[in-house]
Amino acid sequence: MKAVQYQEVGGKPVVVDVPEPEPGPGQVLLKVTAAGVCHSDIAVMSWGEDEMYMPLPLTLGHEGAGTVAALGDGVTGVEVGESVAVYGPWGCGRCVMCAQGEENYCLVAQQEGIFPPGLGAPGAIAEYLLVDNARHLVPLDGLDPVTTVPLTDAGLTPYHAIKQALPRLVPGSTAVVIGTGGLGHVGIQLLRALSPARVVALDVNEEKLELARRVGAHEALLSDGAAAGRIRELTGGRGAQGVFDFVGVQPTVDLATAVAGVESDVLIVGIGGGAAKVGFGVTAYDAAVRAPYWGSRSELVEVLDLARAGAIDVHVETYSIDEAPKAYERLHDGKVNGRAVILPNG
Amino acid sequence: MKAVQYQEVGGKPVVVDVPEPEPGPGQVLLKVTAAGVCHSDIAVMSWGEDEMYMPLPLTLGHEGAGTVAALGDGVTGVEVGESVAVYGPWGCGRCVMCAQGEENYCLVAQQEGIFPPGLGAPGAIAEYLLVDNARHLVPLDGLDPVTTVPLTDAGLTPYHAIKQALPRLVPGSTAVVIGTGGLGHVGIQLLRALSPARVVALDVNEEKLELARRVGAHEALLSDGAAAGRIRELTGGRGAQGVFDFVGVQPTVDLATAVAGVESDVLIVGIGGGAAKVGFGVTAYDAAVRAPYWGSRSELVEVLDLARAGAIDVHVETYSIDEAPKAYERLHDGKVNGRAVILPNG
Amino acid sequence: MKAVQYQEVGGKPVVVDVPEPEPGPGQVLLKVTAAGVCHSDIAVMSWGEDEMYMPLPLTLGHEGAGTVAALGDGVTGVEVGESVAVYGPWGCGRCVMCAQGEENYCLVAQQEGIFPPGLGAPGAIAEYLLVDNARHLVPLDGLDPVTTVPLTDAGLTPYHAIKQALPRLVPGSTAVVIGTGGLGHVGIQLLRALSPARVVALDVNEEKLELARRVGAHEALLSDGAAAGRIRELTGGRGAQGVFDFVGVQPTVDLATAVAGVESDVLIVGIGGGAAKVGFGVTAYDAAVRAPYWGSRSELVEVLDLARAGAIDVHVETYSIDEAPKAYERLHDGKVNGRAVILPNG
Amino acid sequence: MKAVQYQEVGGKPVVVDVPEPEPGPGQVLLKVTAAGVCHSDIAVMSWGEDEMYMPLPLTLGHEGAGTVAALGDGVTGVEVGESVAVYGPWGCGRCVMCAQGEENYCLVAQQEGIFPPGLGAPGAIAEYLLVDNARHLVPLDGLDPVTTVPLTDAGLTPYHAIKQALPRLVPGSTAVVIGTGGLGHVGIQLLRALSPARVVALDVNEEKLELARRVGAHEALLSDGAAAGRIRELTGGRGAQGVFDFVGVQPTVDLATAVAGVESDVLIVGIGGGAAKVGFGVTAYDAAVRAPYWGSRSELVEVLDLARAGAIDVHVETYSIDEAPKAYERLHDGKVNGRAVILPNG
Repeated sequence: MKAVQYQEVGGKPVVVDVPEPEPGPGQVLLKVTAAGVCHSDIAVMSWGEDEMYMPLPLTLGHEGAGTVAALGDGVTGVEVGESVAVYGPWGCGRCVMCAQGEENYCLVAQQEGIFPPGLGAPGAIAEYLLVDNARHLVPLDGLDPVTTVPLTDAGLTPYHAIKQALPRLVPGSTAVVIGTGGLGHVGIQLLRALSPARVVALDVNEEKLELARRVGAHEALLSDGAAAGRIRELTGGRGAQGVFDFVGVQPTVDLATAVAGVESDVLIVGIGGGAAKVGFGVTAYDAAVRAPYWGSRSELVEVLDLARAGAIDVHVETYSIDEAPKAYERLHDGKVNGRAVILPNG
Repeated sequence: MKAVQYQEVGGKPVVVDVPEPEPGPGQVLLKVTAAGVCHSDIAVMSWGEDEMYMPLPLTLGHEGAGTVAALGDGVTGVEVGESVAVYGPWGCGRCVMCAQGEENYCLVAQQEGIFPPGLGAPGAIAEYLLVDNARHLVPLDGLDPVTTVPLTDAGLTPYHAIKQALPRLVPGSTAVVIGTGGLGHVGIQLLRALSPARVVALDVNEEKLELARRVGAHEALLSDGAAAGRIRELTGGRGAQGVFDFVGVQPTVDLATAVAGVESDVLIVGIGGGAAKVGFGVTAYDAAVRAPYWGSRSELVEVLDLARAGAIDVHVETYSIDEAPKAYERLHDGKVNGRAVILPNG
Repeated sequence: MKAVQYQEVGGKPVVVDVPEPEPGPGQVLLKVTAAGVCHSDIAVMSWGEDEMYMPLPLTLGHEGAGTVAALGDGVTGVEVGESVAVYGPWGCGRCVMCAQGEENYCLVAQQEGIFPPGLGAPGAIAEYLLVDNARHLVPLDGLDPVTTVPLTDAGLTPYHAIKQALPRLVPGSTAVVIGTGGLGHVGIQLLRALSPARVVALDVNEEKLELARRVGAHEALLSDGAAAGRIRELTGGRGAQGVFDFVGVQPTVDLATAVAGVESDVLIVGIGGGAAKVGFGVTAYDAAVRAPYWGSRSELVEVLDLARAGAIDVHVETYSIDEAPKAYERLHDGKVNGRAVILPNG
Repeated sequence: MKAVQYQEVGGKPVVVDVPEPEPGPGQVLLKVTAAGVCHSDIAVMSWGEDEMYMPLPLTLGHEGAGTVAALGDGVTGVEVGESVAVYGPWGCGRCVMCAQGEENYCLVAQQEGIFPPGLGAPGAIAEYLLVDNARHLVPLDGLDPVTTVPLTDAGLTPYHAIKQALPRLVPGSTAVVIGTGGLGHVGIQLLRALSPARVVALDVNEEKLELARRVGAHEALLSDGAAAGRIRELTGGRGAQGVFDFVGVQPTVDLATAVAGVESDVLIVGIGGGAAKVGFGVTAYDAAVRAPYWGSRSELVEVLDLARAGAIDVHVETYSIDEAPKAYERLHDGKVNGRAVILPNG
C-alpha cells in the first residue's frame, strides 16, 4: 500500500510502498478515509539526530479517520465497515492516568515504547492504518471524516485546554485567544459554544483577525505592543480570566501572562518554545499558568458531539496521497488555509 | 477445578467441580488468592425467578484477587506471577463512561450482556478466575490479598460515595455514617483519612458503636428516634454536610435526609430498598440526595494506595473453599465479624 | 409615600400611604424605578394564620431596582443618583455562608429576624425602598431597570440552579426544563448561554411550547404521560444530565426523576409542594436531587453581566403603583404574559 | 494609648503614644489581646522611598485579635466583650470578589485607598485597634487569642494555597513543602489534616527538618542540589501533585517546578522575588503554577474551626508591647522560634 514517510533526519516526506498491515489479537485495521497534516509533524522533521527519539522510517499522520476493514482476534463491540475517528495519544490502558482515559498522560508509555500513530507508530497518511486497540476508536455516527479528522488533534487539544478554564469563564469574564490558525480558530468556536465569556482574539495581521471575527470572536486585535494595554482597558483593568496561547513563542507567552487577571487560567498550548514567568509581583494573584498536551478519550467524544451539533466549522483543503508532500510544503510555507487533509483512498 | 456456585433460584451455594477456564485473546487467567463474600450475593440469592436476570448456574464472588496464571494472545503489560486485585464492575471499555474508567456506569453493558464476575460472569470463589481484560487488574504491589480483597467492593463503594462529598467536608463540617458494618466501618476510616470533618456514626447497638469509635468515629450514637435531634444539637442546628447511609432501608434514608444540612451531600449506598423524599420544604436547601453504585477504575487504584499507606484496617475471617457455604450461612445470620474471605487455593 | 401592602391574612394587596423611610447608619434609601410581581407573593397571601411568620402589614415586592436617594451615616462606595438592583435574600453578613455571599443560606437570619424586602421587611412596591446595607446593591451600569428587575429573582433563581449542573452539561448532554413560565423561560435562555447542552422544554400547552422554542429550546414537548418515554428516546436511552423543575408539584417532580440519567443533577426549583423519591433502584445511579433557593450575591452580578451581554430577554408588562393590585389579580389568573413589573414612580 | 509604629523610611519600629481611636458608624473598636509579628513587616520596612506606597507613620501588625470594646452606630450582631480574630485583607465589600468573601482580591481596594490593618491602615500592635466593619471579625469561640492570632495570616495564607490543590491530593499523591518556618510548619499540619497525601518537607538544615517531622511530615529532606532527584525517586518518577513554596526565591521556585509532576498544582507562596518558568517542554504537562495571596473570609472561619478541632499547633513566643521592637529584631535575625506574638494589654 502507499504510505507517506519521513525516512531520515533532514529528509522530506515521500510517498512509498509498504506492506499492508494485518491486525493481531485486539487490534483493528482501518481503511483510511482522511488524515490530517499538522504543524507538529513539521516540528518533528526539523529535529536533529540527537533530538529524534522515534524510530525511522516513520509513516506520518497523527490525525486519522477510517472505516473498519478487519478485526484482530478477541475484538468485540466494533463492526467491519464502521466509520470511526482515531484517538491519537495512545497509552498503556492500565495505569492510573489511562484508567481515567487520560492516555495523553500515560505514566509508562515512554518506557514501554508506546507511541501515537504518526509520532512513533505508523501513522494515518497511508491507505491502511493499524490501530492497537478498539478503545482508541470513536464512532463518527454520521460525521464527515474529511472535515472531522482535524478535530482529533486541532479540536481535542484546544478543547482540553479550554475545559480546564471553564469554571473561571463565567458571565462578565473575558477569554483571550492568541493565534487564530489551525487550533486557534477552532478554539474561538469552542469558547463560544462552551462559555458566556467575551472572546478577544489576537493575531499578527488583519486577514487573520477577519477570520477570527467570522468564527465568533467578539473582538479581534493586532498582537502588537499595545495589545496588553488594550485588553486591560477592554476589561476595565481586570484582565482576562482565561488566556489560550496557541503560538507559544516567548513574546506570546509574555503577552499571555501580562493580560491574565487575578484568579485566571493561562494555557500555553503552542509548542513554540517560550517559557512564561510566574511569581509574586510578576503575575496576577492566582493566575494559574500551565502547558497542556492533547486531550483525553472522553474529551474526544465530547468534541465530536459538539461537531455533530453543528458548533464547529473547520475549513479544510484536501489532497490525494500523492500530493501529501506538497501539502506539507504548503503548510511549511504558511499557505494552508485552515487545515490540510489527505484522502489516501479518495 | 472447585468453584462455589448458586445453581438454581431458591437454592443454596454449593461447591462443585467445573472445567478450568482458558484465556482467549486479550483475557487473563488468575489463580485466586482471595475472594470476598458479600451481602449483595445473599440479596441475589433471595430473588425470585422473575427478578433473576443472570444466567444460572453462577459461580459466586465479585471481590477477587489472584496471581496471574496465564495470558491470552495479545496481552501486554502484565506478567505471569504478578499479584493483582480485580476491578469488578466490568463495562464495554469504549463508551463515554468507560472512557473515563467509570465502567460501573457503562452505557451498554446490559444490552451487550457484560456482567461483573460473580454477578453474571463466573466469579472469584473458585480456584481460577478468568478476567476479560487486563485493564481490570490492579497490581497489589505488596498488599496482602487476604485483607485487601474486600476493598475491591467494601472499600471502593464507600470511597466513591465519600469522594463526591469531599468538597463539602471542610473544617467545621460534620459527616454522618449510618450503619457501621462491612462498608460503614471502612467508610469511617476513609472519612478520617480524606477529610477534616467530624465523623458521627449511628448504629443499632452499643457493640457496633464501640467498633465505630475504635476505627475513628468522633461520636457514635444509637440510631433511634432521638438521633436526628442529637445531631442537630451537636452541629449547633446546622445539620451534617455529608450523610452516608450504608443501610438504605426506609427509616435510615428518612434519618439521612432529616440530619442533612443546607448545601450537603446525602449518599444512599445501602440497597435496603428505601426511597428518600426530596423537595422544597422537605429537605434542607441544596441538600443533594443520590444513590451511587460501586466505583471507577482510578478510584480503586486510590483505595489501594490508601491501604498501602496504612489508613484502612479491614477485619477479615478466612475460610477454605469447602467452607464457603458456611461463610454465606454465617453472613446471612449476622455472625460474620468484619468481612468473610475465601481462600480457594489456601 | 404610596406603598402596596398585604395587611391581614386572607386580604388582598392594597395601595396605602405610609411614611417615607429614612436611612440609618449603614443603610441606603432608594427611589424605586421598578419592582417585580412574583408568584411567591401569591403563595404567601394564600397562607393561613398559623403559617404566616412575617409581621403584617407587609409592603410587597422582593424584586427591586432604584436610584440611590440618600445614604445613611458611614456608607461609602455608593453615590446618590446611582442606578442599582437589589439583592433580595438578605442575611447577617457575617456567618460562614454570608462570608461567601450566600446570604440566601444565612445561618442566623431567621433567629435574628432578618427578612428579605417584601418577604418580611418592607418591600419594593412603594415609592421608596430602604436597603439595610450597601452590599445588597448591584450597579445596573446602563441596564434598563424595568426589564432587568425580574432578573433579581426570576433570573437569579434559575441561574443558581443551573450553575450547579454545569459540570454535567458537556457536549452531547441533554438539559430538561419543566415549566416554561416566569423562571422557566429565563432558564432556557440561561442554559443556551452557559452550556452546549441540548435543551428540551416541557409544558402543558402548545402556546407555551411555542414560547419555549422562541427563546431557544431545541425541543419542546407536552408534559404528558408520554414525555418521559420521548426524552429517553431522544437521548438514546441515557436520559438527561440536567433536569430543572420550575413547577415542583408531585407529577413534575416524578417526571423530573424519571428522565434523569446516570450522573445527573435534578433541581426542584418550583415550590409546588412535591417531593421526589430517590434511592437505589428508584433513580438512576448518582442522579443528585436537590431543592435550591434563590442565589448568591456574586451570582446576581453574573446574571446582570449576562443581561448586559444581551443573552437574556425577559418579556415584561408594566403597571403604575395604583394598578399593582390588578397586576396581582392578573398574575393569579394566569393572564400575565412574561413578568409583571410595577413602576412606582413612573 | 501605646502603639508600635514604623515612622519613616529606613527607620526602626518604635513604641509611641497615639490617641485612642473611636468607632464611627459601622466600625468596631477592639481592645487588642494579641498581635502577630510577621516577616512581611520586615520586608515593608526594607523598601525604599520609591516603593513605599503606604502613608507613614504606620502602626504595625496585620495579625490581630481582641475583645470588642465599643461599637459604632448601626453595628449589629456583635457584642461588647466578645473575643474575636480580625480578617486582615480588607476590601470594599461590594465588588464581585468581595461578594464572595475574597476581599484579598478586591477589585477596587487599591484605587479606593483601602488597606489591611498594619499594611496601610493602623495595625494591631497597639492597645486598641479600629476595625472598619463587623464583617471582618471572626468569633474565637473559646480559642486562645495568643496561639490563634498567627493563624489569621500564617494559617490562612497556607490554607488558601493548599485548598486549591486538594482535588489533586488524592491517595497515592505527594505534597512537597519548601520552607518549614512560620507558614511552612503550619502548612505541613494543614496538609496532614486535609488530605491523604504523603508530605515531603524541604529545608536547609537538620534542625528545621526535625521540626518538620515533628509536625507531621512523612519525609524531610535537605533542599540541596540532590533534592529534586530524590523526590522523583520517592515518587517512582512521577513527581509531586502539590508543591508549596513558602520561600519563593529563585532557587526554590526552580526546585518547585522541577519536582512538579503531570497534572499538579504549584503554589508560590513566599514573597522572595523568584519567578518560575512554565511552558511546553519546561514543566510537566498541566502543572499549574500560580502565586496566591492571603485568603478569603470563609477560609479564615475554616482555619479557626480546624484549630478548634486541635489539628494545628503553632509555637509562639510572647512579648509585651514595649518589647515589640526587640521581637522585630529577633525575627530579622532569624532567632524567633515559631511565631512572635505581642500582648499589648497583657
